[in-house]
Amino acid sequence: MPKISKKGILMPESPIRKLVPFAENARKRGVKVYQLNIGQPDIETPKVALDAVKNNNLKILAYSRSEGSEEYRIKLSNYYHSKNIKVNHQEIIVTSGASEALSFAFGSIMDKDDEIIVPEPFYANYNGFSVANSLKIVPVVSTIENNFSLPSIEDFEKLITKKTKAILICNPNNPTGYLYSKKEIEKLVEIVKKHDLFLISDEVYREFTYDGGSHYSIMEDSSIAQNAIMIDSVSKRYSMCGARIGCVVSKNESVIKTVLKFAQSRLSPPTYAQIASEAALETPQSYFQEINTKYVSRRNLLIHELKKIDGLKVATPKGAFYCIVELPIEDASDFAQWMLEKFNFNNETIMVAPAEGFYSTEGLGKNQIRIAYVLNEKDLKTSVYILKLALEKYNS
Amino acid sequence: MPKISKKGILMPESPIRKLVPFAENARKRGVKVYQLNIGQPDIETPKVALDAVKNNNLKILAYSRSEGSEEYRIKLSNYYHSKNIKVNHQEIIVTSGASEALSFAFGSIMDKDDEIIVPEPFYANYNGFSVANSLKIVPVVSTIENNFSLPSIEDFEKLITKKTKAILICNPNNPTGYLYSKKEIEKLVEIVKKHDLFLISDEVYREFTYDGGSHYSIMEDSSIAQNAIMIDSVSKRYSMCGARIGCVVSKNESVIKTVLKFAQSRLSPPTYAQIASEAALETPQSYFQEINTKYVSRRNLLIHELKKIDGLKVATPKGAFYCIVELPIEDASDFAQWMLEKFNFNNETIMVAPAEGFYSTEGLGKNQIRIAYVLNEKDLKTSVYILKLALEKYNS
Repeated sequence: MPKISKKGILMPESPIRKLVPFAENARKRGVKVYQLNIGQPDIETPKVALDAVKNNNLKILAYSRSEGSEEYRIKLSNYYHSKNIKVNHQEIIVTSGASEALSFAFGSIMDKDDEIIVPEPFYANYNGFSVANSLKIVPVVSTIENNFSLPSIEDFEKLITKKTKAILICNPNNPTGYLYSKKEIEKLVEIVKKHDLFLISDEVYREFTYDGGSHYSIMEDSSIAQNAIMIDSVSKRYSMCGARIGCVVSKNESVIKTVLKFAQSRLSPPTYAQIASEAALETPQSYFQEINTKYVSRRNLLIHELKKIDGLKVATPKGAFYCIVELPIEDASDFAQWMLEKFNFNNETIMVAPAEGFYSTEGLGKNQIRIAYVLNEKDLKTSVYILKLALEKYNS
Repeated sequence: MPKISKKGILMPESPIRKLVPFAENARKRGVKVYQLNIGQPDIETPKVALDAVKNNNLKILAYSRSEGSEEYRIKLSNYYHSKNIKVNHQEIIVTSGASEALSFAFGSIMDKDDEIIVPEPFYANYNGFSVANSLKIVPVVSTIENNFSLPSIEDFEKLITKKTKAILICNPNNPTGYLYSKKEIEKLVEIVKKHDLFLISDEVYREFTYDGGSHYSIMEDSSIAQNAIMIDSVSKRYSMCGARIGCVVSKNESVIKTVLKFAQSRLSPPTYAQIASEAALETPQSYFQEINTKYVSRRNLLIHELKKIDGLKVATPKGAFYCIVELPIEDASDFAQWMLEKFNFNNETIMVAPAEGFYSTEGLGKNQIRIAYVLNEKDLKTSVYILKLALEKYNS
């Protein structure tokens, strides 16, 4: 029998999705499972986007342009201007989600064994994209004690080698919920200029900032126009994760030209989803205000309830809708699976993402989980109560 | 300024799409451009598929499962059974088009510098996927004189090295329109069994076979169940290229398990497009009969008209909707661009795909073009007339 590739063996299972079969079995046994594992919000998609698809008059569902439809990219550039990100539509390549955007960006700037420095913990699928491209993620550790703020310049510089091509951040951060300040971005600007690196910023949670904090994009610093590559997506902004529309944005012409070649090879991004994404740009500002109010309440409740649990550590997230929780146990993967297989309270249990998969340093994050607070307050409160009971039983 | 990757430099421009800006300029000058360059049919998408999307009641456009929705995969496996391809839904991973299916299959079975043997000329984007994965496409030449039939076993075996991991065919073939016979598939079966290789078959044109020829899938030979990987897509079958739904199909569990990890890392295929694809499976058989009748008429007219041109060579396609045409000129790329930039007849011209990009052997295909006969007969006839006049003028 012919063998699969080394890369295929190395490719990690998604820590966000690998417990799904256990959750399905639990459901088959009649157990209700609260899903805190995945960033799939319960928020409704803006009606204007859903209606645009329902009212479309296509007779032939044809390819779009490889770079995405021009109309959509022009409107998207207007949206970015409103966020102080001054890019034109030729600096945008539309992709199938931020996932494809990251794959194309990685392929465009890095070859086998090249290195990319990423603050750890980081969005687990960065591992997948780096394995697919035979790259090496070099983690720079951020800690729960420091609220997962940006590590020092010295910590970054210690890791820079001849193979280093880029620094990658996610801001606001998945999985930590940390919002990088302008000062922290300026530190990164200094490093990438000094060492001639690309700075990739995954800004899909731009709209989700709390407590008066505002998002500062890497695209706002014109001094790194040639270094900066922004990754974006409509998935979280408009609660349309199933659209699969993202984009790569850069003022570096070579980068855009190269990403376009990758984009051409897969023909085009999905047409219906572009219709939805273009229409979603008409979403009223009130939609975002309502959602942010909701997420702040959820976060406040979640953190408040979590802090009642003995021996548990959590940093208060300032953006996105995730937090990393350190549990008074040794093996959070085992615990998470146990909650689905062996535990329930009144026929209910919870699914969380073991945080180990968000780290690449061996041994880190083993006692942590990521919680996505994408459920209503009542369900969140119940979920934390279930977590508390589960911990007691698991530890006894 | 940080540099793009070697891979990014190597990544080819799409020969199907690189002339698009010249066509747009021609249109801006008021010149009508007949598009024969791309396999975007003018056939309407089945109403049942379009209506399913128009009538959807989603409130939240959510992620689907990474492997594609279970309902869709179950129905898809029923469709395959009707084509004598006995696979169950767990042997199918839904992807964003055949493009992503090929990328995942390549990544799952091959590492850097591994080799894949492909009859040449081949679908140009195979080059893109192989560059993205740092693989080497090893071409085995098929010729217009032999109607692009399968090269001999000896021709294949001469090319097999320790690095060879797979043979890839497209059946019916893009760009040649050749339909491989059961006998030819059996030759490939013999080779892959003897040398323990994967056999990847891109079967997206399965429905488009003419003159009583029938399609024989590699999945019908149970003796290579562990070697066979089928690539498929709804793009051509239902004229829904813009859906971006394809799949990887294999009875090899390790392959499916590995492809699933790649699929998890990009979360899910597009949700609306899966709704359309699932509904499209209800398309009545009459739809395909009508279309095939149409394509046969178009092909007959196209070949008949082309053969009137002095010094031109063309093989009669038996499937798909492409043919390779050898022109009495030296540089078809230059000629194709010239037709868009410098030539018109009554303010009309044509866009074709230079065939050079469908070859990887240096120098082959330079005097050939690929024509996609996706236009109505009147437009096709006009297009060939324009080609004839353009050749006369270009050669004078």
